[in-house]
Amino acid sequence: MNLQSTIDTLVIANRILAQKGVLDSFGHVSARHPENTGRYLMSRARSARVVTREDILEYSLDNQVIDSRGFRLFGERPIHGCIYSARPDVMAICHNHAYGLLPFAVTKAIMRPAIHMASPIGEEVHTWDIRDQFGDTNLLVTTNEMGDSLATFLGNRSAALMRGHGSVVVGKSIPEMVFTSYYLQINAEVLIHSQSLGPIQYLSPQQVKLSAALNLSPLAQERMWEDWVLQAGFPSPAAK
Amino acid sequence: MNLQSTIDTLVIANRILAQKGVLDSFGHVSARHPENTGRYLMSRARSARVVTREDILEYSLDNQVIDSRGFRLFGERPIHGCIYSARPDVMAICHNHAYGLLPFAVTKAIMRPAIHMASPIGEEVHTWDIRDQFGDTNLLVTTNEMGDSLATFLGNRSAALMRGHGSVVVGKSIPEMVFTSYYLQINAEVLIHSQSLGPIQYLSPQQVKLSAALNLSPLAQERMWEDWVLQAGFPSPAAK
Amino acid sequence: MNLQSTIDTLVIANRILAQKGVLDSFGHVSARHPENTGRYLMSRARSARVVTREDILEYSLDNQVIDSRGFRLFGERPIHGCIYSARPDVMAICHNHAYGLLPFAVTKAIMRPAIHMASPIGEEVHTWDIRDQFGDTNLLVTTNEMGDSLATFLGNRSAALMRGHGSVVVGKSIPEMVFTSYYLQINAEVLIHSQSLGPIQYLSPQQVKLSAALNLSPLAQERMWEDWVLQAGFPSPAAK
Amino acid sequence: MNLQSTIDTLVIANRILAQKGVLDSFGHVSARHPENTGRYLMSRARSARVVTREDILEYSLDNQVIDSRGFRLFGERPIHGCIYSARPDVMAICHNHAYGLLPFAVTKAIMRPAIHMASPIGEEVHTWDIRDQFGDTNLLVTTNEMGDSLATFLGNRSAALMRGHGSVVVGKSIPEMVFTSYYLQINAEVLIHSQSLGPIQYLSPQQVKLSAALNLSPLAQERMWEDWVLQAGFPSPAAK
Repeated sequence: MNLQSTIDTLVIANRILAQKGVLDSFGHVSARHPENTGRYLMSRARSARVVTREDILEYSLDNQVIDSRGFRLFGERPIHGCIYSARPDVMAICHNHAYGLLPFAVTKAIMRPAIHMASPIGEEVHTWDIRDQFGDTNLLVTTNEMGDSLATFLGNRSAALMRGHGSVVVGKSIPEMVFTSYYLQINAEVLIHSQSLGPIQYLSPQQVKLSAALNLSPLAQERMWEDWVLQAGFPSPAAK
Repeated sequence: MNLQSTIDTLVIANRILAQKGVLDSFGHVSARHPENTGRYLMSRARSARVVTREDILEYSLDNQVIDSRGFRLFGERPIHGCIYSARPDVMAICHNHAYGLLPFAVTKAIMRPAIHMASPIGEEVHTWDIRDQFGDTNLLVTTNEMGDSLATFLGNRSAALMRGHGSVVVGKSIPEMVFTSYYLQINAEVLIHSQSLGPIQYLSPQQVKLSAALNLSPLAQERMWEDWVLQAGFPSPAAK
Repeated sequence: MNLQSTIDTLVIANRILAQKGVLDSFGHVSARHPENTGRYLMSRARSARVVTREDILEYSLDNQVIDSRGFRLFGERPIHGCIYSARPDVMAICHNHAYGLLPFAVTKAIMRPAIHMASPIGEEVHTWDIRDQFGDTNLLVTTNEMGDSLATFLGNRSAALMRGHGSVVVGKSIPEMVFTSYYLQINAEVLIHSQSLGPIQYLSPQQVKLSAALNLSPLAQERMWEDWVLQAGFPSPAAK
Repeated sequence: MNLQSTIDTLVIANRILAQKGVLDSFGHVSARHPENTGRYLMSRARSARVVTREDILEYSLDNQVIDSRGFRLFGERPIHGCIYSARPDVMAICHNHAYGLLPFAVTKAIMRPAIHMASPIGEEVHTWDIRDQFGDTNLLVTTNEMGDSLATFLGNRSAALMRGHGSVVVGKSIPEMVFTSYYLQINAEVLIHSQSLGPIQYLSPQQVKLSAALNLSPLAQERMWEDWVLQAGFPSPAAK
């Protein structure tokens, strides 16, 4: 992917995640710069539903904007730069407050995948509590220390919940990040509706691994991407 | 804000709250008159989804219409005038029956914010029961005594539930009232879906205070407003 | 209301109830003939979403069609004719399977109104079980004996649940029947989501009576009707 | 039905099930070849929402494509061919991950119909666990042995849940398969929302049988089909 193609895909990701209710007016998605691993791309401070190509700005990994063009910026840039610094494998990040997953972010319950479509979230999704290290704040991740703390907590997982706040999801590509963000919420909703039916049978660690490999393969990713791109109002990507 | 601009914003608020399901055919929103703190503005008796500029009338704080133009009026005007009288800081009020929050209005559960987006509802939202003081009625707040009772119960909070009925939400601006009304319902839904997952970790009092300051800042308010105005079918406010 | 106006209103009622999810492809609504109390009007066997003026046929109170025009008829006509026979005050009837109320129709729970908008359902809604009197059947109310049994069970109430099946709702006008059908489902959903929050505070008998009188007054009915008619894609009724 | 008509109906079934949320970007539906009982028809690997007539390919009952035309194929073809082999009465199959039924697929709860519209799912719906026979896999049914195992588990029932994965539903016609797939999910959702209201009163075995016969009769099937075809954006089938 070149820069222009990455920006186009990032705009589409914004719109898909808004259309699917993963992002409301808040939250944001970014992509690592395809030609400079020390930078990332993200919209100016704007709701995902209305982000356009012209809103995408470039940031350094310590979360400084390269050229703001006078725009207001997201205060939570450190979520993105600090994870890109800690995780060279990560190419895209979503920070969202999807309502369906918030019940897991406001209790001590640990989320595990029970359905194969959610296997990319990994064996367990833990909840980072900003209060543990930073005390009472407005809960936003606004400094590099906070961002580093979250990145350390995330470790090599693909998702973390944030207490009283939302979640962060990473991917090796923009579509992978979109896919995992969406099914993280679906998994949460399925688990919540399963509580009254008896003990939940989670996927085994090996099932998680094998199913994630399948879900993140081109076979699954391209099928999802064609469907969601069209749903978000963009023209079809070339069918294969 | 001048009068015309306040009326335009109030019409948009009606439509946003209908589009987001906070208001169904019933419920209403008002704004304090920008040039006369002893008056407020509100639609004639009409569903929020169809309110236009021509429907907005002017009322005194004792809930008399200045000029009805022959229109039928909301019977629950006292909710508005009595709160504007008791709370000089309040510039906008929403009375709604949003389905998602009604479970908290029909039980003795006290609502507290567990997610940072809901911090503007304040540390606790209590439920006013019209029956305590007025016995068996049709539950509507139709007299100034009832309105004063509700205003006293509300105190300096930003929201109160009304038993068997709905809620009232106030703001220091129209967008703030819209924002708080929306996330009051989201908070209720998240709490309900959290019940089976274990003890809920609410925001601390200091987190509520710091997060509310952030959510009600221009940074957050303008982002939400641009998104919701567009969703409600109005042209974009000037982007910043 | 004359015949033409009643037919027009009945078509609108079909579309509103489909648009609001009270009726899916099944269920039906009828109105008593405005000029002949011994007859009622109802669509041929067709989904409410697509019913037109040309689909409305006339039936006797013993559920014989006057002129079928070759159309297939609803098998459950006895729900309608038997209630119109037993209840001279009833002018409109809805039989629906709204998903939101079905949990109350598959358990022995008795539904009571906890929110003022649902007061027209009356103090209690009981569940009629066709199996009690007719043993194992396909659950449809297809004979006049079954219809009479349901009408007797309904008594002077405005709604009854039907075990494993759905509900029947009556009104003194078409809009009243539409209103009560809609809020019966909303009340069920609110009650279900309240179960985990503690004991539910239902409306008192006197509150039910006073609130129902208000909700069924022109003040409330005309506000709802204007909104819902527009939502269903029809031109606005004359505003008052 | 001839081949062209079957293909047209299969395309419509894809779109209906996508429009109703039974299929998301994944899952698939097939129909037995109307002129060759040893073959079946199904789309190339593509999301149901975007399937067209040109995407439908022909497969043998051992799940070999007759002419792929260079397209990528669904990996889970064995679900289809193995069931068509084991069940000469089956003319259409749906494999879906509808979110509403997944709670039953991740617990040991056995689903039974409690509402008459769900009677075509049969007296009980059991959950097949691929792990029992095949150990840790990516959960997909990708070999004929897996397909045969699922077909054997299904037996003469009309639906089976698949642990951690979804469901399979069969029908004697395409509309019947669509109908049963849809109400399987609705039944699951009703049961989940009923848990807190007290013991569930399921349909009796005889009620299931009699109600299923009614629901799968032309009276019900044609009413549903007209409505759903229109909802999915296709022109009306000839009304009867």
